Amino acid sequence: MILSHMEKHSEPLDGVFQALADPTRRAVLGRLGQGPASISDLAKPFDMALPSFMKHIRTLEQSGLIRTRKQGRVRTCAIEKKRFAAAEAWLSEQRALWEGRIGRLEQFVTTEEAKGNRQ
Amino acid sequence: MILSHMEKHSEPLDGVFQALADPTRRAVLGRLGQGPASISDLAKPFDMALPSFMKHIRTLEQSGLIRTRKQGRVRTCAIEKKRFAAAEAWLSEQRALWEGRIGRLEQFVTTEEAKGNRQ
Repeated sequence: MILSHMEKHSEPLDGVFQALADPTRRAVLGRLGQGPASISDLAKPFDMALPSFMKHIRTLEQSGLIRTRKQGRVRTCAIEKKRFAAAEAWLSEQRALWEGRIGRLEQFVTTEEAKGNRQ
Repeated sequence: MILSHMEKHSEPLDGVFQALADPTRRAVLGRLGQGPASISDLAKPFDMALPSFMKHIRTLEQSGLIRTRKQGRVRTCAIEKKRFAAAEAWLSEQRALWEGRIGRLEQFVTTEEAKGNRQ
């Protein structure tokens, strides 16, 4: 029950991490970090057929990491920071868990040492 | 040339993000954040056949996000923080790019406003 609930709500993270698991898509995101760009400009650095490149763009769009907008014949892409923030939040939550645990371990060791010193 | 070089060096990130793109694997990592655990303990909360669960463990191990060690009949898993840090570093690098850009935009606007005020 708990897991199916979790699964339902973690779908966006599945898509985000899936989208990040490819060097072409990460490079596109890096480029879009400098500002919006057209698909033809984004495709230029890659030695890749346009249909293959478009698949990457669609994966990024479906993950919510980018949005695209068509103006006349040109489709422009822009980054969506909210989805990035979701991935960052998950990772930093994990770190908080370890650091909390390490903090508690250190506290335990310090307390035990203090006890040792008093004996 | 540049892209193939990049691709070569970004393989670990591909595996890391791929491993994170699944709710079962993220839940396992969350559990391991509380400390090392045996595979049988890790598998308990999941309504999943052991071979399927083992596939997730192998994906996590191949990504470098966890390490496993066999002692007698028990295989214990532990988290590998270095690989987490690689994913965090990539994401915060992207953020630094946008924020740098926004910082420069703000500076430009402020300078233009200052010019406007002087006129």
